[in-house]
This record gives sequence, C-alpha cells and structure tokens, in this order.
Amino acid sequence: MSFEKLDELGRKLEALEHAQAILGADEATHMAVGGGEKRAEAMATLAGIYHRQATAPEVADWIGAAKTESLDEDQQSALREFERQYTNLTCLPAEFVERQTAARLRSEQLWRDLRAKNDWAGFRPALENIVALVREEAGMRADVLKLSPYDALMEQYDPGNRAADIAPVFAELKIFLTDFVPEALAVQEERLANRPLKPLSGVYPIEKQRELGLTLMAAVGFDLNHGSLSVSHHPFCGGVPTDVRITTRYKTSDFLSALMGVLHETGHALYEQNLPKAWSHWPLGKARGMAVHESQSLFVEKQLGRNPAFWRWALPVVERDLGEAWTLEDLLPHVHRVERGLIRVDADEVTYPLHVILRFELEQDLVSGRLEVAELPEAWDAKMRAYLGLSTIDNAADGPMQDVHWPSAAFGYFPSYTLGAMMAAQQWAALTREHPSADDDIARGDFDAVNAWRRERIWSQGSRYSTPELLERATGEKLNAAHFIAHLKRRYGKS
Amino acid sequence: MSFEKLDELGRKLEALEHAQAILGADEATHMAVGGGEKRAEAMATLAGIYHRQATAPEVADWIGAAKTESLDEDQQSALREFERQYTNLTCLPAEFVERQTAARLRSEQLWRDLRAKNDWAGFRPALENIVALVREEAGMRADVLKLSPYDALMEQYDPGNRAADIAPVFAELKIFLTDFVPEALAVQEERLANRPLKPLSGVYPIEKQRELGLTLMAAVGFDLNHGSLSVSHHPFCGGVPTDVRITTRYKTSDFLSALMGVLHETGHALYEQNLPKAWSHWPLGKARGMAVHESQSLFVEKQLGRNPAFWRWALPVVERDLGEAWTLEDLLPHVHRVERGLIRVDADEVTYPLHVILRFELEQDLVSGRLEVAELPEAWDAKMRAYLGLSTIDNAADGPMQDVHWPSAAFGYFPSYTLGAMMAAQQWAALTREHPSADDDIARGDFDAVNAWRRERIWSQGSRYSTPELLERATGEKLNAAHFIAHLKRRYGKS
Repeated sequence: MSFEKLDELGRKLEALEHAQAILGADEATHMAVGGGEKRAEAMATLAGIYHRQATAPEVADWIGAAKTESLDEDQQSALREFERQYTNLTCLPAEFVERQTAARLRSEQLWRDLRAKNDWAGFRPALENIVALVREEAGMRADVLKLSPYDALMEQYDPGNRAADIAPVFAELKIFLTDFVPEALAVQEERLANRPLKPLSGVYPIEKQRELGLTLMAAVGFDLNHGSLSVSHHPFCGGVPTDVRITTRYKTSDFLSALMGVLHETGHALYEQNLPKAWSHWPLGKARGMAVHESQSLFVEKQLGRNPAFWRWALPVVERDLGEAWTLEDLLPHVHRVERGLIRVDADEVTYPLHVILRFELEQDLVSGRLEVAELPEAWDAKMRAYLGLSTIDNAADGPMQDVHWPSAAFGYFPSYTLGAMMAAQQWAALTREHPSADDDIARGDFDAVNAWRRERIWSQGSRYSTPELLERATGEKLNAAHFIAHLKRRYGKS
Repeated sequence: MSFEKLDELGRKLEALEHAQAILGADEATHMAVGGGEKRAEAMATLAGIYHRQATAPEVADWIGAAKTESLDEDQQSALREFERQYTNLTCLPAEFVERQTAARLRSEQLWRDLRAKNDWAGFRPALENIVALVREEAGMRADVLKLSPYDALMEQYDPGNRAADIAPVFAELKIFLTDFVPEALAVQEERLANRPLKPLSGVYPIEKQRELGLTLMAAVGFDLNHGSLSVSHHPFCGGVPTDVRITTRYKTSDFLSALMGVLHETGHALYEQNLPKAWSHWPLGKARGMAVHESQSLFVEKQLGRNPAFWRWALPVVERDLGEAWTLEDLLPHVHRVERGLIRVDADEVTYPLHVILRFELEQDLVSGRLEVAELPEAWDAKMRAYLGLSTIDNAADGPMQDVHWPSAAFGYFPSYTLGAMMAAQQWAALTREHPSADDDIARGDFDAVNAWRRERIWSQGSRYSTPELLERATGEKLNAAHFIAHLKRRYGKS
C-alpha cells in the first residue's frame, strides 16, 4: 500500500528531525565552543539527507497512488499534509534553491557585520539581490499553489492565511492603536505619578530564579518528565515533543526578564508536548504553523502571565523562592510597562503590532514591486513617524536593517507575530465565555480548565485544519480584532 | 572518480555518526526522563539509514573501481579502511543480523533482570542461544576474512590481533601474576602496618571536585575548547573529536573515585581530540580499535595518574581546590590499593588482567565448542580459584553473569582491556627510553613531551596500521609482557 510507504517515510523523516532538533538545542546549550564548524557540517549534511528522502520522485507516486486507496479520515488528513509538505519542498527548482541559499548566507553574514556599523549603503545591494530572488520565488510558488505571490510566501508559515483577510483586520488594529498608544502612555504616566515605581531590588541569584521558573512552568502545565529548562544566549523552545528544550537567560538584577521569557517559551512547549502522539511521524502531527505557535506562547505570556489574576497566585511563590515580598500594585507596573521604541523585539504588547504592521505593509510592496529597496529607508521612516511618532532616518540599523528576516529571505513571516497575539486574545475570550471563572482559577494557580480547553481545541488538532479554520473551529468565529482591542483596553486603557 | 564517491559517502556517514554520538551523549546527560522511548526509536532509525548507506551495493563497485585509480598513499590507506568497514558491515546476511539482534535484546533484558536475582538456571537458555548464534557468526566472519573463528570476532574490535600472538603473552602474564598478587598484597599489608591508612575526610563538595577534575584534565592536555565534562550514571567518553563529551559521577565522601575516572576518560578523549582532522570523514581517520583506545585511557589513568611523580605536582592542586593537604605517603596507599575481588570493573591494575585472562580463555572455548554454557559456572569457578583464590560457585551473578558482554553477543572484546594495559606500559617504557626525564616533567605538571610522543606515534596515525603494527611502530617492538610486568613490580613489588 502506498500510504504505508508514506508512513514509513514519515518515520525516517521524524528520526532525522529528531536528530536535527536535539543537535540544534545542544548547539545553543551544551556544545563545546570549538565544536561549531563540524556541527554546521553535520547539520548541513543531515539536511541534505532529509531533503533527498523527502523529495524523492517516488514520494509523488506514493501520494498519487494513496489517493486511490481506502483511507480512514485521519489517514486522509495525513495524506493531504504529506502532499502539502512535498509540494512546499519541491516547488522550487534545485538550481534556484542553491542560488538563493548562497545569496542568503552571504546577505546574513553581511547584515551581521554592516548592521553593527549602520552601513545601509553597503548592505543595500545584498538586500536588492535577496528581494529580486524573493520575487522570483514568490512567482514560482504562486504558480504552483494558484495563489497571489505574497500569499504563496505566507503559505509556508501559516497555511490558509491570505493577505486579503488579514489586511482589513490589521487596518482596524492600526487605526485603533494610533490613538490608543498615547492613551495608554497617559494612563501609565498618571498611575506612576500617583504611585512611584518600586524598583527591582537587583540581587536575584540565578539558581533561585531557575527554581522559580521551574515552579511556574510546572504549574502552568509544562511536563518536566518530557522537557527541561536550560540557559542559552537567545531564549528558544526546541527539542522534540517528548523532550522539549526551553531556555532562558538570567540577569541577576531583574527576575522578571528571565521569568516572562520562560513563560513565553513554556507556551510554545505546551503546544509541542500536547500534539497528538499517534501522528508524531506525520506532517499532520506537527504544530499548525507560526501564527498558531505564537498564539500559544503569547497565550501563556500575555493572557496568563501578565494577567493580574496570575500574580495573585504567583506573588507568594515569588516571595518564597526569591525571598522578596511584592504587592500586586507594585509589580503590575513592571509587567504592564508601555513604551514607544524603535526595536520590535523589545516592544510591549501595545506597541508591538505597529512594528509588525509596518513590516507587513512594506514587505507586500517589496514583493509586488511597488516598492524598491532603495526607497526603503524613507518608506520605513514615514511609517514609523505615522504609527509611533519616531524617526529612523539615518538610522537604518534600527530601521530596515533591524531584523534578520529580510536578510534571510524570510518574507511573509512577520504577520505571524501579531496574528498570534490576536489569536491568543480571541482564544482567551472564547475560553472565558465558556469558563467565566477562568480568572478565579488562575488566581488559585489552577490551570486545568484553561489547558483542557486549549488541549481539545488547539493542541490535539495538530495540522488537521488550516490556520484560519483552526481558529474558527476553536473560537467560533473568524479572526476578529475586537478581542485583542478589548484586551488592550481592559489592561492599558482608561478604566 | 570512484574514490570521490567514497569520499562523499564518508561525509554522509560522518554526519550520521556525529548525530548518533551527540544523541548518545545527550541521552546519558541532558535528556528528559520521558524522552527515552522516542530517542530509542530515532536512534534505531538513524542506525538503519546509516546501515543502508554504508552497505549499498554500489559501494562495493566504488571500492573495486577505486583500486584501479591513481591514488596517493593516504587515499590508498583510506581505501583499505573503507573496504574493511564495508566487509565488516556486509559479511553477515541481513536475515542473520535480525535474528541475532532480536536474541541479543531479549538476552540483555533477561540478564538485567536475572543477574539481580542470581538466577543462572533462568538465564542459561538465553545465553545458550546467544552462544549458538555467536558460533554461527564467527564461522561466517571466518569464511569471509580467512581467519580462525575467534580471530574473526576479535578483528571487529582490534584489526590484526590474533589469539596465537596474544595467548602466549597472556600466559606469561598469568604465571607472573599468580605469584605476584600474593606478593603485592603482603607488601601492602606490611606498609599499612607501619603507616596506617589515612582515611579520606569525606566532605568534598561536587562543585570543587569538578573544578579539580577540569584543572587536571586541562593540565594533561584535554582541549576544553573541543570538549566538556558533565555527569552521568556510568562514566563514559563520547561525542565527536571536535566536541568530546566525558562524564563522571561524584561521591562527596571520596574525591579519588571521580578524579581517577576523569583521568581515565581524559585518556580516551585525548586520542579522539588528536586524531587526524583531514581524515575525519574516512574510516582511516578513526581511532584504531578498542585495545589501542584502552591503552590511551590507561596511559593517562595508570601510567600518569597513579604515578607518584604525578602526585608530586597534583597534591598542591588538590590542596588548593579541595582545601585539604595530603602527603604523598598518605595518598599513594589509596591510589595503589590492591585487593582480590570477584568483580572485574572494581579490580585494581594488579588483579584486573586475571579477570580478563579468565574470560579470554573461557570465551575461546565457548566459541570453539570445547566448552558448553552448561559447564560455564564450574569452569569459571575453577579458574577464579586458581587465579585469585576466590569462589563463585552458587554465585553466577558475580561469575559468568557478571558482565554485559556475553549477554550482548560481544565475544572477542575482553582481551582489549588487558592488551590496553600492557600496551600502555610498553608505550611508557618506550617513551621514557627516549625521554628519561618524563617523570621529572610530570612532577612539574609538564605533559608536553609525553603528549608530543603520543601524538606522533599513536594519535596522528588514525587507522593507518593494524593494532600490532601500530604498537610495533610506536614502541619498536611487538607486544611484550615484560614492560607491564616491570611496571607492576616497580609499583607494587618488594623494593
């Protein structure tokens, strides 16, 4: 049976993915400093072995033949995702992939070097080359997938997401935020005038922060039997569903920085740990995509971890583990800090979407050819002024050279961040409609009902549905900015 | 060119070996408890991918064709080792390997369970099955390699080793040790009567022991840029030459136990770290075999680490790191402790060879059919009485059920341990002939000349020569028991 051959192929690919995932996590946490060169060589060779196995011509035959076989519903879903994976991996000619990979490695290297020097003129030709290749890529993907070029790029990260659906939702959010950011800042200023910020005491030993992190991870549902917490320069969630590796980095001066990072990665980890185990060797058993994954991390970090109810329960734990007593009134201003800034990754949940919408708008124009790389600094600056009142002119390092995504040819990825934030708020709204006592649960440190809802609606579904379908089935409606807007108003607006 | 195809195959196999080695080390050190099942699945699948690639029929064609190509000397050596690897991997029919693997897994599992219960009668049928399969295996290997059956088994671990060469050397050693063990024990007793043993104080924090271990590792030449030290239940040396993972386990009551283990694994690690880098993707670039590897670990542990000169330098380091002052006279009785015992892995360097010679003799008889499994407890007991004056009758758990090797179908491996000890002594003797000041160097903590000699003679040679050839080229003579005997007399005999 051809489906059986796909099933067997799935097991081989799962083993190779397992090796790549553990080697990747190991590289950032336990690898000897001098081990990097050989590791890179091994990873590249494993990627080649994976690619050859996953894209072998007979796989297309098996997919074709399996369509005529009598399959149960799960197998049919699995077959669809096998085909999606195969199409994604084979829709670009090998010659193009090689050309693009070489250009990308060069441009990433150049970016690392020239961003530090704020040298836009030096970097521009490399980015022009990348954009030319991305236009080519988008065209080829569009032809195969029968989608518009930009949608064809997004399809890699979030199957089913379409710019035509997202753009009006982002537009609504942008209009709201343009007025709301000043309001939130004014509210914050007034609060701080009435009650000055209590500074963090600044002496939090790493071992104690780690204990606190592990306690909160376990409480919100992380299975320490199938995962661990360690240290790396850039926090991440990696490993495999049966052994999820999350990392953080500690500042002894500030316990919130590591802790909020741990909660964010725990959100990713819960999704991975609770994917359907029986499908783990099928693409169907993988997480749906970047936006849904981000919705899970932001659900834990923002909907739970920055929820005042959460801190009613967590503050005594902090006091026990760190030996420092905080009142809710003193802690929340740290957790709910809003600040206009140039840097996306440093942004709070109020200003963050404006950073993403700016990139979403610009990258669509870059892909379509409405915008050229030469015009990017001015275009970026104009939007930055309009959305956040800040300028990046003569500061390309914090403008169009800020992120690794474009130098890496990853266009169509940025929307996932804000879609994730919106989807998390929409999930929270749906959940609290069904469980009005969710806040009370959380204030008691009880995450069972919250997790049961997410397990049933999101985690256990794997890649059964497209991104918008999954959201609609989980929450009863299509992507709706109202929930995220209501969430921000509740947390940051005039009361 | 066919050699180029072998070269390319070598890079793929190296990447898969890299993944397997790091996953293996990770499993024992950092894997989440619940990650084991999937890890085992991934490792088995990777082993299958490796085996299919390494044994593909076209590899035989490439080897054949490469023999007619114009190759330089290194490439010719590489080709010979490619062929050896291919022959070793393909000389058993797949049907047999599957049958043997299943029997081995069953027997290992049974062994783990029944050894704890000292249930020889229950275990016997499983071992009989294993021995029957090993006889079959030895016969098939012997046919392909044109060797005697037992030599064909040893050939997997130490290419070139022949029972006809080893047996007389072991016989000489056995005769010596039968008299020497009582002498060494009497010398020890007299010394302890004159100067009672100073006990270890029993409070050595793990973090301080670790620091001490790292200091000594680095001093004897371990490159911490290409390796690390962590903790596991069973100490090992794993990883890859660019990132060697060694482990130990700590007792807070005894700093010597972890430290001597660290030195032993450091010996293995130095060999790996100093293999020829340009050949790392060829079988030629791998360590020669088990006996040579053991000679490197025992060189560091026994020839260096239990050498009084070493402690002249190391005692002030111990005092600095552990805060405890020791005199050489008080420490050496711990480092040179001799004791008759039933357990091979707990044995000191004086009694250890007798454990190995007992197994070497019995396993040759088992393979040839001169001995049956049913007769094993009596045969073991008779030799144990003759060599060490101890009995294992009614104690099969500490007799023929003691080691995992036979339940795992690993016959022909045991000699490597004692060959390693003898080769280490022979290397030390050759080295000190050329560098008479080696002891003085070591007493100053200077290991440069010692390591330069080993780098040139052993490490940099990879698998260029057979085991006996490598030894003869390094030391100027064939395996000669006199060096090990002289070493034991010097360290443990009447002065």
